[in-house]
This record gives sequence, structure tokens and C-alpha cells, in this order.
Amino acid sequence: MATLNVAEVVHELGRLGATDRAVAFRLLAKDRAVEVFEDLDPALQAELVASLHGHAAAIFAALDPDDRAALLDEVPAGVARRLLAALPPDEHAATTALLGYPEDSAGRRMSPEVVAVPVGTTVGDTIAQVRAAGDDAETVYVVPVVADGRRVRGVVSLRRLVLTDPATPVDAVMSPATTVRATDDAEHAANVVRDGGFVGVPVVDGEDRLVGVLTVDDAMRVLEAEDDEDSARTGGAEPLRRPYLSVSVLGLVRSRVVWLLMLIVAASLTVGVQSYFEDELAQVVALALFVPLLIGTGGNAGSQAATTVVRASAVGDVRTGDVARVVGREMLTGLLLGLTLATVGVGPAMLVAGPAIGLVLALTVVAVCTLATTVGSSVPLLAKRVGIDPAIVSAPFISTFVDTTGLIVYFSIAKAVLGI
Amino acid sequence: MATLNVAEVVHELGRLGATDRAVAFRLLAKDRAVEVFEDLDPALQAELVASLHGHAAAIFAALDPDDRAALLDEVPAGVARRLLAALPPDEHAATTALLGYPEDSAGRRMSPEVVAVPVGTTVGDTIAQVRAAGDDAETVYVVPVVADGRRVRGVVSLRRLVLTDPATPVDAVMSPATTVRATDDAEHAANVVRDGGFVGVPVVDGEDRLVGVLTVDDAMRVLEAEDDEDSARTGGAEPLRRPYLSVSVLGLVRSRVVWLLMLIVAASLTVGVQSYFEDELAQVVALALFVPLLIGTGGNAGSQAATTVVRASAVGDVRTGDVARVVGREMLTGLLLGLTLATVGVGPAMLVAGPAIGLVLALTVVAVCTLATTVGSSVPLLAKRVGIDPAIVSAPFISTFVDTTGLIVYFSIAKAVLGI
Repeated sequence: MATLNVAEVVHELGRLGATDRAVAFRLLAKDRAVEVFEDLDPALQAELVASLHGHAAAIFAALDPDDRAALLDEVPAGVARRLLAALPPDEHAATTALLGYPEDSAGRRMSPEVVAVPVGTTVGDTIAQVRAAGDDAETVYVVPVVADGRRVRGVVSLRRLVLTDPATPVDAVMSPATTVRATDDAEHAANVVRDGGFVGVPVVDGEDRLVGVLTVDDAMRVLEAEDDEDSARTGGAEPLRRPYLSVSVLGLVRSRVVWLLMLIVAASLTVGVQSYFEDELAQVVALALFVPLLIGTGGNAGSQAATTVVRASAVGDVRTGDVARVVGREMLTGLLLGLTLATVGVGPAMLVAGPAIGLVLALTVVAVCTLATTVGSSVPLLAKRVGIDPAIVSAPFISTFVDTTGLIVYFSIAKAVLGI
Repeated sequence: MATLNVAEVVHELGRLGATDRAVAFRLLAKDRAVEVFEDLDPALQAELVASLHGHAAAIFAALDPDDRAALLDEVPAGVARRLLAALPPDEHAATTALLGYPEDSAGRRMSPEVVAVPVGTTVGDTIAQVRAAGDDAETVYVVPVVADGRRVRGVVSLRRLVLTDPATPVDAVMSPATTVRATDDAEHAANVVRDGGFVGVPVVDGEDRLVGVLTVDDAMRVLEAEDDEDSARTGGAEPLRRPYLSVSVLGLVRSRVVWLLMLIVAASLTVGVQSYFEDELAQVVALALFVPLLIGTGGNAGSQAATTVVRASAVGDVRTGDVARVVGREMLTGLLLGLTLATVGVGPAMLVAGPAIGLVLALTVVAVCTLATTVGSSVPLLAKRVGIDPAIVSAPFISTFVDTTGLIVYFSIAKAVLGI
């Protein structure tokens, strides 16, 4: 292929600096520019809009209402007002309706321009309505069937419509609808779309009335953004919210420095603990040799448990009601892991450090692994229960916490066994 | 709603033990059972098949060929042979064709039963072909337009077909096709579907001939499995490949113990390093107090860099050719992070440990942060270049490596500054 397709152009733009990107974007033909713009990250869209002046309003008007709402979240308030004001009245109404839903809700991400038909409509008439909507409706692959004030009674796919005799009433061929609430968390709604393998899912208000459809491509974007966020926080940083190479070095520093500072403050507890046991350390310097190994192992066991539980909770395999069951399983897992490591490692440890310190190490490994998996699994789930993103209190915080408590366990066992 | 929908049934089944799951599954009506089965994890499908005896063949025949291929990867070879043998001849052919592509390739995950039309076909005739295929074709939302021995010339969406006058030739309304190769990595192909917001993408062979379509729901599953894998390995464990609560405690131990053992072997290098500097440690016991804090900070900085780069590489934002650029950025980021932490922390450190050790700590933090981001970003990218999953050499390995080298840096700086 001689020319790049839209996805490739989007990718290449994401790798350029802001100025080069603006120049490259202006070189695109108008129709292509709109397609490319639609697929860019909202953060990059916002930058482009700021640099496009006159062209911005035309491109903005060509977007779907949900893409418009996402962009408005990114640009400064003054720019947002100007862009909204330039919209034709009906587009304006569709966009402000979306902005009425809370951020990160399904309502913000849905397509409000939906073809829906009342119960009793024939398949032929339904197809005619799809035709009449033309390119205005963002999705026509899922047609909700409604009754009684837009309450959803079922859905019929465009595929089913094409396969069915036109005189059949839609109710005869519709399937029961899986719906989500407009106020539902967007991630939950996107999981519903993915788990069911749907092309789209009707979105309803508090009284079960149809307000839009969450389409599969919007769901995929929601999940990608959530995965970005979980992945960044698991690594102890804030999500970048835009392609890596388009972020400046200062931007990278900004996404990480607060986490590092918080973690270093938490880690300074380890200094306190070791100062408290300084006499024992001075008496048996050999104890110091194994500190990095022990706290490293505790950190690893804790981060395994935390990562597993955070992920299981993100995909919906584990719910907040499962805390006791999950923590019980993880505690037992940690105990078995600790016993395995102690059994395998006790020989070499005794050879290196003598039988007494070898025993201390073996006992500490068992205790620290059990502690780490217990903390690593319970803290994220408890955080979720009180409304904190479980990914925030994941691996790095667990490691730091386990470092401190692990040291207390280590020196306490050493004091008891060695009699110091 | 009084009854659970398919997605909810799938979810609840994933939370049961193997025996309860088999019993609950047998209670489902036949048609519903097939729908539920389709959406289950392949690992759970394999277990069910083993427990279903006579029913298994019927359910197996009702699956789409790509779902069948995924299931065959999970069941024992003997069971796979029996299931394949019981298939009608055409279904048998479609399934074995898929099994000819390498594991984790787009060819394994595509739908081979596709409606495609030659260039010149009218829209009306194309719709007629979609109708004729009926429920046999897994996807009809994307109709490839072919010429010259099934070479893909474009695609037309079912939506466009419905909106267009039946007498128009499809070539007049088709769009240029973004295609993927059957031998492409499934994750890459799924990223193409997601980034372009496609309902499906034609899959072609080495000579650009159409062999199938990768649909958006299959793409979402591929990406979910890849995210599971990346997330598990970032946390230092093997992916579970099935819902968390359906994994036994021994299964959890198995997914983690090899990683923990390897990491503990690597971490034993820290014991060696500290033994080497044991004299210095005995002379200035205060040095030992800051070891957990320093290596924790190095580990955190390294895991931030590794996680960011692994993710950017998974979504395609960073390629293996970008190694130099990425590592340069990360090195600078690490230097700036280290300088910030040193500036903020040097005051408290001097108060606690005196000016000399305070200086040692400040210098070490700068060096360790720079080292950590450099290693954290380069190792995953280099691993990818030689064909190793970058997530494997992520956070836990980086931390362990940084622990060891960080200790060498720390004691060397201490020797130089303190003159010991």
C-alpha cells in the first residue's frame, strides 16, 4: 500500500512532537482529517484544537457527540464554550446532554443518536428507519425495541433485520436486552459489552428509559484507558493519558515524582525500625546481610498477590463481597509459598550463615510471605470497598508496607532465636 | 429481570468450583447452554467437556470454528481427536484449517466463515448473499470485496449496504481495507481492530488472499488475555488463564512459586555484595539503616520505568527501533527524579545521620534513580527485540537487579566519601 491508512496516520502523529504534529495534521485532506482526528487521544485532540483556530469549529462539528464530550473535558473552559457555541442547535443539545452525566460514567461515553423502534414495528419499517437515519446515527448495528415511554423491551441486530422477512414484527425476532445504566461506571458497562460479545448495549436512565447505546468501539477505548491507568498505578506512577513518545521528559517526571516521594516517606519507616534494633545489628552484623533478600522476597510475594487481586477485581471476577474468601485463599497461598522457599533455601542459608541465623531466615521467610499475601490481597479490596481505586494501593505500597513490618518480624525472631 | 442473562450466567459459573459448575451447567436449556458455553473461558470449557460425555459433541458442533480451535488447545489430545471426529465434514475442514496457523496468531482467532463478494457485484446481490449465508457466517457486518483470486480490494459494512440503493455496484461504496496477515501476532491484529474502531478486519494469507475476518469481539478477547498476561508478569507471576475464584490455592502457588524462587536466587547476589562490604558495614553500622530505603527507591523508580515502557510497547506506542530514544528519555527522567528526591531528602537525612552519611545518601539516590530508569526501560525493549515477552523481565526482575547494583554503588560512594 502506497498511502498510510487512518490507524497508521493516527499512530505516526502520536510519535511526533506537538508542533510537528500540528503541521502534519494540516497537510491532511479535510475528510481524512476528520477521520484521523476522531481516532486521536483526547489529549492530543485538545492540543490540535488549540493550534487550529478557524478549522477547529468545522472538525468539532463533524465529530460524534460522545467524542465531542470527551474532547471538551480536555480543552480549557474558554475554548470549550467557544466550540460549543459554534455548533448547530441539535448537535449542541446532544452534546450538552452527555455532559450532564458524571465523568467516567457510561452516559458520558454512549452514543445518544440511536435508531429505536416501538414494539409492533415491522422489520421492513425498521430497516426504513435505519435508512432514514443514514449517517446521523452513530450505531445502527443494535436497534433497541421500546414501548411505554421508551422503556427497552429488547434489541434486534441489523444482521437479524437483514435476514428476516420484512413483514415480520420486530418483537418476533428481537432478543432480550442486556442494558446498563447511564450513571453506571463506564468500566463496568464496557466489561458488560466485552463479556457478552455485544456490538452495542442500550443505555437506560433511572426509570429504564432508553437514552443511548454504548458501542463496542467506545467500550474498547474505555477498557484501554482503564488498563493504562491500572498498569501505570501498579508500577507506582500516574497514567500518562497520551502516547508515550508524545509525553515530554518533564511530563514523565511529573507522572512519577509524587509517587516516589510518598513511597520514600513511607520507606523512611524502615530506617526507624532498623534504628530501634541498632544494638542487635551491631552485635550480629551478619543479620544486615540478609535484609535486602528478605524484604525483596516479601515485596515480590506481596506484589504477586496485589497484582492478581487488582486484575481479578478490574475484570469483575472478584467483588468487594468476596474479601474474606479471597484473603483466606491468599493467606494459605502465602503460607505454602513461604514453606516452599524455606525448605529449598534453608540448606544454603545454613551453609552461608550458620544454623542459628539459618533458622531465623527460614522462620522469617514463612512469616513474611504469609504477611505479604495477606496484606497484598486485603488492602486493594478494602480500598475498593471504601471507593478508592484498588490499583492505587497496589504493588509499590504493599512492598513498602511489607518492608517495614517484615523488618520488625525479622529482628523479633532473631532476638528470640539468638537470645540477643 | 427475573432471570440472569447469558453474561451473568457465565460470570456466576466462573465463581463456582468445578463440580458445582458442571451440575449448574447441566441445568441450562440446550440453546442457552450453547450460548453460555461459547462465552466461557477455554480452560473452563475444557473442564466441562470432560464432564459432559455424550452432550459434549453436540455443544462442540454448535460452536464457531475459531471458538472450537481455542477449545481444542485446552483439552487433552485424545479428547480433541474424538471431538473433531464427530464433526460434520465441512465444519471439520474449517476447524482444522484454523489449527494449521501458529498459536497466538491472527489466523487462529479469525472467523473463516465469511461472506465475500467479487468486485462488480451489486449491493442488492451482496445483501442476497448475506441472507443466503444466514446464521452460518459468524460475521456479516464487514463484507470483503475481492478480485483476482480472492485478493481483497476493499470492504463494505452491512450498514453501508442497507443505506445504499440496491442497484449500485459494491465497488462504488466500499472503503479501502485495512487487513492483517493470518501469521501476524494476534495481539498486533487485535490492536489494529481497536485502534481503527473496526467491527472486523479481513485476514489475508502471504499472497494477500482473503482467508477470514478477525471480528471485534474476538479482538477484545485477545486483548483481555494479553492484558491478563502482562498484568500477571508485571506482578511477577504466571497468568492464571481462568477466573481467579475458579483457581485452587495450589494453582495459585504453582503460578507464583517458580518466579519467587528465581527472584530469590537473583536476590542472593545482594547477600554476596553485602558480605564483600562487611568490614565497612561493621565499621559504620549506620550505613545498614538506609539499605531498605535506598533499594526500595531504586526498585520503585525502576518499576515505574519498566511498567510504562512495557505498556507503551504492548499498545504499539513504542517499537523496538525506538530503544535509543526511549532509553535516553528515561535516563534523563531518572536523573531529574533522583535530583528532586535528593534535594527534598538531603535535609532530613543529614539531621538523622550527620552530614557525611547525608551526602552519601544524596549521591546514591541520584545514581540509583538514573541506573534504575535506564535498566528499567532498556531491558524490556531489548528482551522484545530478541523475542522474549517484555513483561517477563519487568518490575520484579528490574528491582532485584537494581538492588544488587544499587548496593555496590552505595558502598562504593560510602567508601570514597567516608574514607573507610
